[in-house]
Amino acid sequence: MKANTNFTKLPQSYLFSEVAARIRDHKESNPESEVIRMDIGDVTLPIARCVLDAMHKGIEEMASTVTFRGYGPEQGYAFLREAISEGDYKSRGLDISPDEIFISDGAKSDLGNLGDIYSPDSVVAVADPGYPVYVDTAVMGGRGGDLTESGRWNKIVYADSTPENGFVPRPPKEHADVVYLCSPNNPTGVVFDRETLKEWVEYARREKAVIVYDSAYEAFVDDPAVPRSIYEIPGAQEVAIEIRSFSKTAGFTGLRCGYTVVPKALKASGENGEEVSVNRLWNRRQSTKFNGASYPIQCGAAALYSPEGRAAIKENIDVYKSNARYIKKKLSEAGFETYGGEHSPYVWARHPEQTDSWALFAKLLKEAGISCTPGIGFGRAGGGYIRLTGFNTPEKTREAMDRLGKVDF
Amino acid sequence: MKANTNFTKLPQSYLFSEVAARIRDHKESNPESEVIRMDIGDVTLPIARCVLDAMHKGIEEMASTVTFRGYGPEQGYAFLREAISEGDYKSRGLDISPDEIFISDGAKSDLGNLGDIYSPDSVVAVADPGYPVYVDTAVMGGRGGDLTESGRWNKIVYADSTPENGFVPRPPKEHADVVYLCSPNNPTGVVFDRETLKEWVEYARREKAVIVYDSAYEAFVDDPAVPRSIYEIPGAQEVAIEIRSFSKTAGFTGLRCGYTVVPKALKASGENGEEVSVNRLWNRRQSTKFNGASYPIQCGAAALYSPEGRAAIKENIDVYKSNARYIKKKLSEAGFETYGGEHSPYVWARHPEQTDSWALFAKLLKEAGISCTPGIGFGRAGGGYIRLTGFNTPEKTREAMDRLGKVDF
Repeated sequence: MKANTNFTKLPQSYLFSEVAARIRDHKESNPESEVIRMDIGDVTLPIARCVLDAMHKGIEEMASTVTFRGYGPEQGYAFLREAISEGDYKSRGLDISPDEIFISDGAKSDLGNLGDIYSPDSVVAVADPGYPVYVDTAVMGGRGGDLTESGRWNKIVYADSTPENGFVPRPPKEHADVVYLCSPNNPTGVVFDRETLKEWVEYARREKAVIVYDSAYEAFVDDPAVPRSIYEIPGAQEVAIEIRSFSKTAGFTGLRCGYTVVPKALKASGENGEEVSVNRLWNRRQSTKFNGASYPIQCGAAALYSPEGRAAIKENIDVYKSNARYIKKKLSEAGFETYGGEHSPYVWARHPEQTDSWALFAKLLKEAGISCTPGIGFGRAGGGYIRLTGFNTPEKTREAMDRLGKVDF
Repeated sequence: MKANTNFTKLPQSYLFSEVAARIRDHKESNPESEVIRMDIGDVTLPIARCVLDAMHKGIEEMASTVTFRGYGPEQGYAFLREAISEGDYKSRGLDISPDEIFISDGAKSDLGNLGDIYSPDSVVAVADPGYPVYVDTAVMGGRGGDLTESGRWNKIVYADSTPENGFVPRPPKEHADVVYLCSPNNPTGVVFDRETLKEWVEYARREKAVIVYDSAYEAFVDDPAVPRSIYEIPGAQEVAIEIRSFSKTAGFTGLRCGYTVVPKALKASGENGEEVSVNRLWNRRQSTKFNGASYPIQCGAAALYSPEGRAAIKENIDVYKSNARYIKKKLSEAGFETYGGEHSPYVWARHPEQTDSWALFAKLLKEAGISCTPGIGFGRAGGGYIRLTGFNTPEKTREAMDRLGKVDF
């Protein structure tokens, strides 16, 4: 067979694998030191009892011919799509109906698979720094062009997040067909305010672009002035797909469930400029290449919309946010500039005396036994920064910050 | 955004949706008639107790911080990959190691997603009739060309299965880069013998093609002369990917788990003719666009490799095969030519007096209240045939065949 040579253009080593390898090396050379993981994007708190019970029940239905469930709808079960429509949208004044919601096995799958429905020559825009999957999947789909010396791909449009704009990227001058945005942002923890998000929606309307809005961390927002859904911006249903996940809010990283909203008002242009329903394109993609998320896991996700489920999510998020606030405070005290850490589990930081991401990573690992993620791994504009996460336990988070306080920067 | 216009080339209506719609219409016009579903490709027997117990245990691990599992390996957990390597390969004399096995959320996902790693201009070959996903995903990926009046795509190579070759397709004269084969076959129920499979492996070696070998029904084979894995053919590890599923053997259609074997010996050619490891290509695809199958479901799948799990699979399959044999016998008595139904849940049939698939479908629905799948839906060479499945209960299967016996053909 002939390989898709776009794959071979990608750097061999993936950011998170490189971080893991360096931590491993450090542990081998320093067997007595206990590394505290502040780099992890994975949750640590257990799954709520109401969710576990719902999954047990779903599994037990499989025990009898009468209640057995075989193939489910590729789009997900109505009970879950209805709970999401009501719980996450209609109750907040947003008109998203169940048939605009597609249940996934996680945000990462859909973020990548959406590439199937865009024209192969689409111009992709990303905020820099950003979650590496946006760029990597664009490259795999032949939309990256070539990697230049600057570390950027020549066909991709980058919207810089910098201290000058408070790490809130603005729409670029260049045209794009597909724009990936994330708020609360991974890795910076910064959120879009309503005004900036409006600018992006206007950009998309003007350029006839689609915004793929990754709001996997929306539940971390608790200020009504900060939008939790892009559909809070008028006209966004005509230009945006919204992607969410139960991973970071309810601990589903190992269970695998999320959802993607594709409004019926969203249209693409076809070969001769005719309107094509994006909801129908995505439905066809999912019907042909997916057989739905696991039934018992969907039962568990639906339980999150009960009062107990809601309370459990809030409890989890409060822990992670309290960790993030503590990290932010201690980093500031140690002389770091910090961003994020308010509506997000992520803190983004730079030390004025230490302006190389990997060098700072190495210093923290060596002198404090703390692992972080070097910002440069999220894009050129992340150079000099590091990302720390609030996903460890409160105890480990405090210990890590105590150690940090003793480092001489 | 600009749509991938290959999507809009696909016929609007998918075979199985059309069948469902016609059954619905029939029921509305004939509310007193009970339709017996002989078209279903979905299983009906419950999940084995040992599998349910393993999933409950996996779920309960999520209840405590100590045993909680977050992100798993994208490739699947080692415990399951090792069980498959030993249970399905090494114990049968086939050298497939755990790192050549990738756990999926089902065969359909991987059959479609594999398109990501082939060069966009690859020539695709399929056996006709065949599972519609092979052709539909080739078209979505821009490898179909245009739909011609004959109902075939002008860039796809078709290997006909006909009464003349006993519905065992032979390699085509034309070159192909990617070949989809399925044995035991869906829809015909026919299996490859060792000699014919050798011809295909030789074809692939000569043409530098990859064979995507869909063996989702291999557990239905009980004759040692019939290969259960393509790797039983010497040299196949250098040319074949094998796709399997727990859906039809253990009732996982609603749970979602399967696996894909990508041998390390399998090489693709890169931009300048250099060798590229297909195992690495697929690993990169899965690491970037997938986050692994659900942990508790993987626990359930691993339980299938216990003695109880093995026994449960055998018990299920015996029921479905006994149904299929009965269907085959009764169809023959009613004057049908039949194929399959021995190492397969599927029976493929044609009546000499009724040579239009959809007309035969309509006649059986109207006169006997039996639904089947029209063979033409699986490709041009399926014209005139129908597919019946052994997945209903033994009682319903008998009743359906009694009704069939009273129809005047």
